[in-house]
Amino acid sequence: MDVVSQMKLFMEPRSVAIVGATRRTGPLSFNIVERLLDSGFQGKIYPVNPEADQISGLKAYPSTKDIPGPVDLAVIPIWERSSVPDLVRQCTEKGIKAIVVVGQGFADADDEGRALQQELLSIVRERGARLLGPNSLGVANPSQGLNTAFINVRMESLPIGLVCQSGLFFGGLPASALLGKGIDIANASDIHFAEALQYYEDDAETKLIVLHIEGVRDGRKFMEVARRVSRKKPIVALKAARTEQGARAAQSHTGSLAGRDDIFDAALKQCGIVRARDIDELADLIKAFLRLPLMRGREVGIVSTSGGAAIMAADACASENLEVARLSAPTKGGLQELSPPWMRATNPLDYWPMSIHSRKSAPEVGKKGVRDFLADHKVDAVIHVPGYYPPQDVSRIAKDFVHISEAFPEKPVCWWMSGYHAAEVTAEFESQGVAVFASCERITRALAKLHQRWQFLQSD
Amino acid sequence: MDVVSQMKLFMEPRSVAIVGATRRTGPLSFNIVERLLDSGFQGKIYPVNPEADQISGLKAYPSTKDIPGPVDLAVIPIWERSSVPDLVRQCTEKGIKAIVVVGQGFADADDEGRALQQELLSIVRERGARLLGPNSLGVANPSQGLNTAFINVRMESLPIGLVCQSGLFFGGLPASALLGKGIDIANASDIHFAEALQYYEDDAETKLIVLHIEGVRDGRKFMEVARRVSRKKPIVALKAARTEQGARAAQSHTGSLAGRDDIFDAALKQCGIVRARDIDELADLIKAFLRLPLMRGREVGIVSTSGGAAIMAADACASENLEVARLSAPTKGGLQELSPPWMRATNPLDYWPMSIHSRKSAPEVGKKGVRDFLADHKVDAVIHVPGYYPPQDVSRIAKDFVHISEAFPEKPVCWWMSGYHAAEVTAEFESQGVAVFASCERITRALAKLHQRWQFLQSD
Repeated sequence: MDVVSQMKLFMEPRSVAIVGATRRTGPLSFNIVERLLDSGFQGKIYPVNPEADQISGLKAYPSTKDIPGPVDLAVIPIWERSSVPDLVRQCTEKGIKAIVVVGQGFADADDEGRALQQELLSIVRERGARLLGPNSLGVANPSQGLNTAFINVRMESLPIGLVCQSGLFFGGLPASALLGKGIDIANASDIHFAEALQYYEDDAETKLIVLHIEGVRDGRKFMEVARRVSRKKPIVALKAARTEQGARAAQSHTGSLAGRDDIFDAALKQCGIVRARDIDELADLIKAFLRLPLMRGREVGIVSTSGGAAIMAADACASENLEVARLSAPTKGGLQELSPPWMRATNPLDYWPMSIHSRKSAPEVGKKGVRDFLADHKVDAVIHVPGYYPPQDVSRIAKDFVHISEAFPEKPVCWWMSGYHAAEVTAEFESQGVAVFASCERITRALAKLHQRWQFLQSD
Repeated sequence: MDVVSQMKLFMEPRSVAIVGATRRTGPLSFNIVERLLDSGFQGKIYPVNPEADQISGLKAYPSTKDIPGPVDLAVIPIWERSSVPDLVRQCTEKGIKAIVVVGQGFADADDEGRALQQELLSIVRERGARLLGPNSLGVANPSQGLNTAFINVRMESLPIGLVCQSGLFFGGLPASALLGKGIDIANASDIHFAEALQYYEDDAETKLIVLHIEGVRDGRKFMEVARRVSRKKPIVALKAARTEQGARAAQSHTGSLAGRDDIFDAALKQCGIVRARDIDELADLIKAFLRLPLMRGREVGIVSTSGGAAIMAADACASENLEVARLSAPTKGGLQELSPPWMRATNPLDYWPMSIHSRKSAPEVGKKGVRDFLADHKVDAVIHVPGYYPPQDVSRIAKDFVHISEAFPEKPVCWWMSGYHAAEVTAEFESQGVAVFASCERITRALAKLHQRWQFLQSD
């Protein structure tokens, strides 16, 4: 069986056995059977528990071998680490080829744990099965109603494929919902980033891949796969354990060897992987890569109803090595017609005085500003900071701006909202697909990464 | 009249004249009379407009001199810049000592504008009046129901004094409401940061001062006042125009000379002013300084239900030159009792396995962790990352944690929420005064600044 077929047993199983299913119920019961039913899994669910007849309304089986039909995926939520090897062996004897081990106390712990993890690995290798974990929440796939996490996880069907080493991400970072599919490789004794990437590589539902990395084991293999996959789909990575203090903590979390951060950074760049510095940036990059085109050059146009915001946007460009574009003469001329004589229409464009002088509404002048900037071949992306929009007009104004952006599909337009009603205006614009960010600094960080990927795709 | 008395005419006026009040009404009418009525101003309001008998239901006067009573504050919202000097002169002839000029086109524009601004300054100096602006939204003081902005501004009565050079902040940055009092010095032809700081210096309602700076004119005076005031109250500053590109833009916004950023940075530090790098950090520092005690050392305790989060917290400490505290032996011993034998209870504390092993609920183990860490003299601050809290228990759990924090009033406790229900849990904890931040990185940035201020106050 090739890797993708193996991974499909995890991600698209027709049947799941929970080996060591609990009889507890309700919140904080960590009942995976219940979670699977909640998430709407349509395949067969086989609870295994020698002391139960039924679990969450489903027939329970005393042991794995008693399950009547074939089983694609087994999840073992047992915390008594010494009993795990036997349970894994029983799964392989039943012919199960995909096994999730949930409990901790393996390579994340002590010498005995490391030996046990090694034993698990030998068992699955011998039978041609694959192991996810230990220390893993398993997998999630919203389009299958599949979620093997024992904690409550809200899922959203975004075209994102997540690979992580912590349940934190699985539980919904940077949002409070899992944004798409998820694979928690955790201790990564067997299935590592390379296998997970290969699953997402040609998965039609996945447009963007997000990695949370504590450490990489087989660096050469990882880079080979990552380089190939990132030609097809953007990969965004948050690397934790990037400092000595973090690396020490990672050792007792997933048993990962974090490696030197500068080497890691260079390796990610070489693979075309875009690195997020923190959770905020991860959220921004997810938004940017899902909603915006790549940025083809380094020239930014700033259109703002506030001079103060325009300055911050110019600062933010400089911080990310982006340029405040020099407009071409016709663009400046067209905007100068609306401006008071004492003001030069330029980039950044501070259009509040233009609105006062021309007696046109600020939204109208803003639209002209954004449109004219986008039409200028000297501009590669636009930052727009609007002012107050009357609540009854917000939806219509958003639509107008969406149309303007659509006419320039090769140039990202990023928004920063401020002031009165900002939350409501943001919600409406976001619902129409506009990319609104929390600050100019966060916009330019995202733009720089959209440009980084553009450059990567241009290179050989 | 001393500076504070002069500033009180702006901030606590008994009567306000709007010289050149518009007859338009509703949103986007920029009607200051209407805004003043909306904000609940209880003093006298005198609209001045030669073409109107009434404005927003109030008697209008043909000119300033026709106003019957004394006037503390005049606001001139006229955009025809050439007519402003005359209107200012009429105000001074009426004996008005506090004047806001709203229009642009002065030092922010061309030579003629600079000359006009100089003329305004001469007029007020001659009569012992003070000028705020030009290019200013004026002042706001929630406890007086006062807001002279012509745009819609929502006010919250937090004990914050803002001094800014852009209406953007006045309109509600980093929140979408003005958090306390506001003074928009804008072009700062006359009233500059030093005057505004002196007003807040002994104002009983102001506990924290926030500055948005594009440029400082009289650096020596500014530093002298700032150094004195920051001994009494924390001052947080966001410096815009910190790059060459930003400085160019600032020149045509408020006519500010931005100065070299490294010199600025050193000057701010010397004054004990805490600098925010961006809007996100400004929001975090406002929260930190209002809700948390200063941090007395550099040692951080990390208590987390997620090993992945603990690693990110350790990384974040290293980035801000904070230490992951080495716990004292009794603290470790007490926590080890709950831990599985294969796990060392240490800092960072990953308490999920402790909850499983000890069969105590995660919130209970979390409370013990936070309490024991705070009680350890080796720990100066705690970062807590909790897991899932059942909705019906959130309020009670928050109360318990508030009590724990209150027992250690000299140590900041910062929270990072994640996962399922994070938004709701955050809202409840925030409403009880807990300081919740958006990421570990943002926590350690805030902690570092709480420590910076502690060090400043220890120095001579």
